[in-house]
Amino acid sequence: MHAAIVGIGHTEYSRDSGRSELKLACEAIGAAMRDAGLRPDEVDGIAKYTMDNNDPVEIARCPGLPRLRFFGGVPYGGGGGPAGTVLLAAMAVTTGQAQAVIAFRAMNERSGRGTPRFGQAWMTDRAEGPFSYLAPYGLFSPAQMVAMAARRHMHLYGTESRHFGEIARICRHHANLNPDAMMHGKPMTLEDHQASRMIADPLRLLDCCLETDGGAAVIVTTPEFARDLCQPPVHIAAAGMGGGAWNNRFMVKDAEAVHNETTVITEHLFQDAGITHDDIDVLFIYDHFTPMVLMALEDFRFCPRGEGKDFIGDGSRFRWPQGHLPMNTSGGNLSEGYMHGMQNIIEAVRQLRGTAPCQVQGAQHAFVSAGNAVPSSAMILRRDG
Amino acid sequence: MHAAIVGIGHTEYSRDSGRSELKLACEAIGAAMRDAGLRPDEVDGIAKYTMDNNDPVEIARCPGLPRLRFFGGVPYGGGGGPAGTVLLAAMAVTTGQAQAVIAFRAMNERSGRGTPRFGQAWMTDRAEGPFSYLAPYGLFSPAQMVAMAARRHMHLYGTESRHFGEIARICRHHANLNPDAMMHGKPMTLEDHQASRMIADPLRLLDCCLETDGGAAVIVTTPEFARDLCQPPVHIAAAGMGGGAWNNRFMVKDAEAVHNETTVITEHLFQDAGITHDDIDVLFIYDHFTPMVLMALEDFRFCPRGEGKDFIGDGSRFRWPQGHLPMNTSGGNLSEGYMHGMQNIIEAVRQLRGTAPCQVQGAQHAFVSAGNAVPSSAMILRRDG
Repeated sequence: MHAAIVGIGHTEYSRDSGRSELKLACEAIGAAMRDAGLRPDEVDGIAKYTMDNNDPVEIARCPGLPRLRFFGGVPYGGGGGPAGTVLLAAMAVTTGQAQAVIAFRAMNERSGRGTPRFGQAWMTDRAEGPFSYLAPYGLFSPAQMVAMAARRHMHLYGTESRHFGEIARICRHHANLNPDAMMHGKPMTLEDHQASRMIADPLRLLDCCLETDGGAAVIVTTPEFARDLCQPPVHIAAAGMGGGAWNNRFMVKDAEAVHNETTVITEHLFQDAGITHDDIDVLFIYDHFTPMVLMALEDFRFCPRGEGKDFIGDGSRFRWPQGHLPMNTSGGNLSEGYMHGMQNIIEAVRQLRGTAPCQVQGAQHAFVSAGNAVPSSAMILRRDG
Repeated sequence: MHAAIVGIGHTEYSRDSGRSELKLACEAIGAAMRDAGLRPDEVDGIAKYTMDNNDPVEIARCPGLPRLRFFGGVPYGGGGGPAGTVLLAAMAVTTGQAQAVIAFRAMNERSGRGTPRFGQAWMTDRAEGPFSYLAPYGLFSPAQMVAMAARRHMHLYGTESRHFGEIARICRHHANLNPDAMMHGKPMTLEDHQASRMIADPLRLLDCCLETDGGAAVIVTTPEFARDLCQPPVHIAAAGMGGGAWNNRFMVKDAEAVHNETTVITEHLFQDAGITHDDIDVLFIYDHFTPMVLMALEDFRFCPRGEGKDFIGDGSRFRWPQGHLPMNTSGGNLSEGYMHGMQNIIEAVRQLRGTAPCQVQGAQHAFVSAGNAVPSSAMILRRDG
């Protein structure tokens, strides 16, 4: 890829935004354009989560983009979405189809204001396609489906609920250092986690990500065009999408599959970026549910399969500032806000600019993954120098 | 772009397929893979019309693709869809994100079998977003919206219904030479056109495309990988998407706009391909409604704006074999089958391979446009030598 992120923007993250999803998207995009120093006539592409309710033409009309030369979408929500939309944008500018492309996510996911709440349609009475095979067994929600994968991992490898709890605590720790995080000012102990109510055994409330109203956007352009803009470019060193042979869209992850949505990406991502795992300074693992973070660390080969529990340990490895591999440093989906992973990309850019609340000194490479257990995406970002 | 179409496949086109949209998609994709000589493990990407009801994971499972490395979609139906999905596929292989990418469209649009009939949701009681401003005025269907743009063009430039009729006749002429066309064996005179019932004044029945059940697919790879496959590669010389400043999604086309979805593409497409309009040997203009074909010819600068009616004339310019610029040589959306434009891409490939029923001798360059009056796409295809 010959592309860099040059603008980031987001709204506040809340339980009720009080405004439309279109307004949230346009506020975030406007903030990203101002951050980059881009004029409307310089932006000519939009990459969206297919699932996002906003229409590219409506989005383009808000800042007054005079012409669109690229518009595309990536399915599978937080899986294909976050790194996938940035990848689409990068492909568009790398191939010269567009000059500067917006990637965004905006939703009133918590309040349901002006739109069906995310996921309602496919989880209940309107279950169709593959979901029609799950609904009769009571598998309606992502938490219920992930619970089965989590239980299988516990059975195979001895993983325990407390390991999931430590992942939640890592994110909450960082959220408490990030004034913009929804869970800022709300510390969590392992006891809090263990005492939180059961949602879908073994998943407790504090194993599940937030539900959030808000908007988040980044803008991608070429390194050449980036030179004239306001911010130091954050380069897309490598990016990939992945779907495995037995990858299902049910979020019932096959813990034993040799190839899955994550391993397909891992096969080439580090090689494409020309670095190894040891070069990663700050880590963003998509945290929809804590067990999925543990499995992602294994599948992305940060540790061998089955050893996630030991790799997590007491979480100190991942906690800023002492840990060697700080993870989800703004609080993640679990404790900053659930922007379907886009907020993790924004924080990764802040880290590589040197402007994060929990700044990793000298951070040069960030790894950002999207939601696993559905077709997924991931990327490695790099700063100059 | 560094990409070529190496496989084409489609089902029969009918009013009632008798099978699911998933089956139609997989039949077309299977045919395209056999045509190219591609094994499942060699195909690793899927580009879809966002509007298509089929899910990439389900699609991948049918031929047994072991891993997906690219999946994306393009919105706006026949506008962004046909050339846009091929462009996404081309971007993916050009940037090395995937090796061989499927672009497809499958729908039971006519029978509605197993799915809501295309367009029903946004045209009636569920009108939302921009459509909520149109529904109160009785603008529910594309034909109603296009009628307003057609009437405006008639007012401004003296265009008459008979010019629209000649466009319909060009497509019907070619359909009668193509045994696979739905309207094969059904000749049409200008009198037939003028006598056909009014749908939305000035649009008559024979100004409107077919409604069709079927599936159509193409496969895109790099020129290097194409060398080992069965068919001569058809290169994507240039491709583009476009949305104008005042481009609306209402299909109420602003006939006077300086920039619209079509002109945005025209600004760079021929230059990117390194050719001029005179180099085009065979023309595919998206024919959802005949007046839109006339306006597309103007906006793509095959003739000056307002002169479409004279350019169409008695249609002889566009009729195979005598015409110098044969158009929609398999019958188009109007008379072959309405695969949302994908069938025109397949016919363009046949022309450049030299295997079309109405074969243009020595055809080297084909121009293929997608639906205008919504955000659109177009491309120029080229054969070697």
